[in-house]
Amino acid sequence: MTSHFADRLLAAIEAKGSPVCVGLDPSFDKLPAEVKAGESPAEQVRAVGAFCRGVLEAVAPIVPVVKPQIAYFEVYRDAGVKLYFELVAEAKRLGLIVIGDVKRGDIGSTASAYAAGHLAGPDSPDAVTVNAYFGADGLAPFVDAARAAGGGLFALVRTSNPSAAAVQDFADAASKPFYEHLAEQIAALGSSEGLIGRCGYSCIGAVVGATYPDEARRLRRVMPQQIFLVPGYGAQGATAADCAAAFKDDGTGALVNASRSVLYAHRDKRYAGMGWKQAVEAAGRTFADDIRRAVS
Amino acid sequence: MTSHFADRLLAAIEAKGSPVCVGLDPSFDKLPAEVKAGESPAEQVRAVGAFCRGVLEAVAPIVPVVKPQIAYFEVYRDAGVKLYFELVAEAKRLGLIVIGDVKRGDIGSTASAYAAGHLAGPDSPDAVTVNAYFGADGLAPFVDAARAAGGGLFALVRTSNPSAAAVQDFADAASKPFYEHLAEQIAALGSSEGLIGRCGYSCIGAVVGATYPDEARRLRRVMPQQIFLVPGYGAQGATAADCAAAFKDDGTGALVNASRSVLYAHRDKRYAGMGWKQAVEAAGRTFADDIRRAVS
Repeated sequence: MTSHFADRLLAAIEAKGSPVCVGLDPSFDKLPAEVKAGESPAEQVRAVGAFCRGVLEAVAPIVPVVKPQIAYFEVYRDAGVKLYFELVAEAKRLGLIVIGDVKRGDIGSTASAYAAGHLAGPDSPDAVTVNAYFGADGLAPFVDAARAAGGGLFALVRTSNPSAAAVQDFADAASKPFYEHLAEQIAALGSSEGLIGRCGYSCIGAVVGATYPDEARRLRRVMPQQIFLVPGYGAQGATAADCAAAFKDDGTGALVNASRSVLYAHRDKRYAGMGWKQAVEAAGRTFADDIRRAVS
Repeated sequence: MTSHFADRLLAAIEAKGSPVCVGLDPSFDKLPAEVKAGESPAEQVRAVGAFCRGVLEAVAPIVPVVKPQIAYFEVYRDAGVKLYFELVAEAKRLGLIVIGDVKRGDIGSTASAYAAGHLAGPDSPDAVTVNAYFGADGLAPFVDAARAAGGGLFALVRTSNPSAAAVQDFADAASKPFYEHLAEQIAALGSSEGLIGRCGYSCIGAVVGATYPDEARRLRRVMPQQIFLVPGYGAQGATAADCAAAFKDDGTGALVNASRSVLYAHRDKRYAGMGWKQAVEAAGRTFADDIRRAVS
């Protein structure tokens, strides 16, 4: 096992056979009744913990990566943050690569504190998502922490939500949109000394929403050394064919995330009659197979 | 006391006599020796807590607002997040308005979780900073939470750090920079039904760095109903005259933040011979007087 994040990520994808990631976005209201024992904050935290541990066990044999979304833990403040890091550790014990979806970003001094809290030390996620709006000096502490820990970053370039275009499509005189300008900066930063793995990809990747496949194809050319973390499949409406636009012709270069369509499979009539954990496993397999077929 | 955030904020500024905010960015290495009892994480958390409580007591008679920066608490994970919310509550007990500097931002479903964790309920900050890159649907849950709680938001428009220009100055064919495009969206969103207080300002404000005064003047025209939260004074290099560019002619419309130059006054030779808490108080007064003079 090498210590470069991109090399580890590609090896894990190869081993599991599909470039997919399951997002842990546990919303108490949607959890299966079996994990709930009450509605108090402490009972909700226990239910979220039990549910997420079950999801990790169900998907660990199928997918290479999980992505806990810290917002769903911050709802419970310190108790939730404690659980978030316990789940990061549990996922790593199960052999999963963990991307902490924290989307932090600030000026350099503050970013150093975020990087220390979220990306340093053996019990941190392998990588985190970051907001790149502050530019290079805001990203530098995260880059340094990633380099030191053999970890990675995924910088927000093009998001998957409906309002993304109204902000991010703002274009210059040559019709280049803002998100492509940001992509150029991420590509330059990611090619810095020591950041490229043996696989040819950088430890600095990019978040590129699957809901805009034409843009993903364009960004694939702008960021040839970035691994794309691709949200938007499933509940957000993108298909496996849409996601395929984020990959290179050799089938590498991207990681597709699904959250709600896997987590809440017990609410999906395709998996009726199964226990919730079996439903998560079945939905995880369906997702992994769907993406594998689309990119091979 | 009215329940609209902008009205409360302007009344608090009027009562204290200066439109200033002290940022709580407690970095353990820079704390006075008197609050330190050891280097373990638990001892560091205790030292940060003792220091911040002392700062709150020292500045509460002088300034209307404090702004804890959550990154410096997340370094200590759940123990730090617990302390962050304890300090929010303590600051509110002392009559201070609290802006949680969290810069969260995500797609709508995730933003709802962040808003619930950071802006709902009586023990939350009065307002939070948010990242606006996702656009209107990512901001909507924060707006809803602010409206429900009588709280506020400050959306990142123009940051104060050196790399800001390389990202945010990206301009269209009419030479309009991206941050101004974002400012127009914030201005439109902030003028929605029910968001404008009796004072004429919206509960949706904007972060506009003081290190670029010409841009602040331009943004003042683009966002007439936004209160500007202005970082960059002191340690980041902006002067009171630079900060004045963010205000309207009547001296309202902005709130200037200083963090390091007040917090670490015990390391400043101008305050030599004082205890650290007296130094914080003296530096707070110097800061408040400096800004008051510049805008009156």
